[in-house]
Amino acid sequence: MSPRILAFDIFGTVVDWHGSIAREVDAMQLGVNGSDFALAWRAGYKPAMQRVMSGELGWTLIDDLHRMILDGLLRQFGIDLDEARKKHLNKVWHRLDPWPDSVEGLRRLKSRFMICTLSNGNIGLLADMAKRAGLPWDCILSAEVFRAYKPDAATYLGVARVFDVAPREVMLVAAHHDDLAGAHACGLGTAYIERPLEFGAGQPKDVSPRPENDLHASSLTALANMLGC
Amino acid sequence: MSPRILAFDIFGTVVDWHGSIAREVDAMQLGVNGSDFALAWRAGYKPAMQRVMSGELGWTLIDDLHRMILDGLLRQFGIDLDEARKKHLNKVWHRLDPWPDSVEGLRRLKSRFMICTLSNGNIGLLADMAKRAGLPWDCILSAEVFRAYKPDAATYLGVARVFDVAPREVMLVAAHHDDLAGAHACGLGTAYIERPLEFGAGQPKDVSPRPENDLHASSLTALANMLGC
Repeated sequence: MSPRILAFDIFGTVVDWHGSIAREVDAMQLGVNGSDFALAWRAGYKPAMQRVMSGELGWTLIDDLHRMILDGLLRQFGIDLDEARKKHLNKVWHRLDPWPDSVEGLRRLKSRFMICTLSNGNIGLLADMAKRAGLPWDCILSAEVFRAYKPDAATYLGVARVFDVAPREVMLVAAHHDDLAGAHACGLGTAYIERPLEFGAGQPKDVSPRPENDLHASSLTALANMLGC
Repeated sequence: MSPRILAFDIFGTVVDWHGSIAREVDAMQLGVNGSDFALAWRAGYKPAMQRVMSGELGWTLIDDLHRMILDGLLRQFGIDLDEARKKHLNKVWHRLDPWPDSVEGLRRLKSRFMICTLSNGNIGLLADMAKRAGLPWDCILSAEVFRAYKPDAATYLGVARVFDVAPREVMLVAAHHDDLAGAHACGLGTAYIERPLEFGAGQPKDVSPRPENDLHASSLTALANMLGC
């Protein structure tokens, strides 16, 4: 197993969506708990992508799916925002903070591997996030490029195709076993990253190792250690 | 005119395709003049893309178009290479050297602008090139993302769409007036870069200013000066 390309899941793996959104929502003083709001927003994410992949919705970017979910949540929580503030809040997903080890880990991994994103987030979202946070990607790949959302095989195999390598030369790095299982089924290598606080301190996540993953690391700097970077 | 996104043409604008290919072909000692071979290869490029855009060929990446042209040239020049060497030679387009000012110019421009590629080259080609040459892109955009080759409007407008900005907030930076004219027609700003030696010392290019471009600079560092970076 010697990957040449490391492809990273983003939300939860490289950046802390829960903490970033909770902080921003709390600071807006909307009369709603920031953590609850973040969890509810994220809970709408998979069903929204499912509507696209089932064909019920045409191809739709995550920015637009996030906005559909947001509009529903604002109604549900009885929050009234003008259009400019809604637009700004929706782009909080472009302003997610990295986990403390992410920038250093990526910088080290970049010295030996081609490092790219493989996220359901749209390209503009990922580029804005990277520029703000200093994430040093060699390349931003997204569901938007492949017109399919993970865990569709077109995304994992798409990375191998873009770089003209065999699937086994690509390793997916992610904090989610279902994402890694999708990659594994396509022949990619897999590295699980522990993010026990992905859903906040109130909902600690089981991060115990599973035998089906090739690597298991507590952080991106730990992964860099394992891969000799 | 205040762009937020600078989108760069690559072949000829940021990297020296002619010199890089001529040097590599000369070093291979194939019995052909490297400069002649480079010019012939590049001459096949626009007609090949035209075959795709006319619908005669289905969607085809530049790597594959380069290979089709290369196979024809090898026959024409009577050169016999095994498959591994053909594959390697075809990827010379991934190994093009930047012009001397490119890395410094991009690094400075990146401090104030989102900088991305907008090239007909495929994503893997552009990522390999950037990693080898140290081109510090915030984002790699390609005809491959938009499934259209420049000067199709879908490419220029695609950049604005990806970053969710108005076309006038994007500026195309290129050494080719036809590319800039395509961008201008879509409402983008335009910056012409002088590359008098794009086709080699034997074929100096007229780089005199044209009034239709917003900016005219002798190099990417000169453009950085103009834009206050």
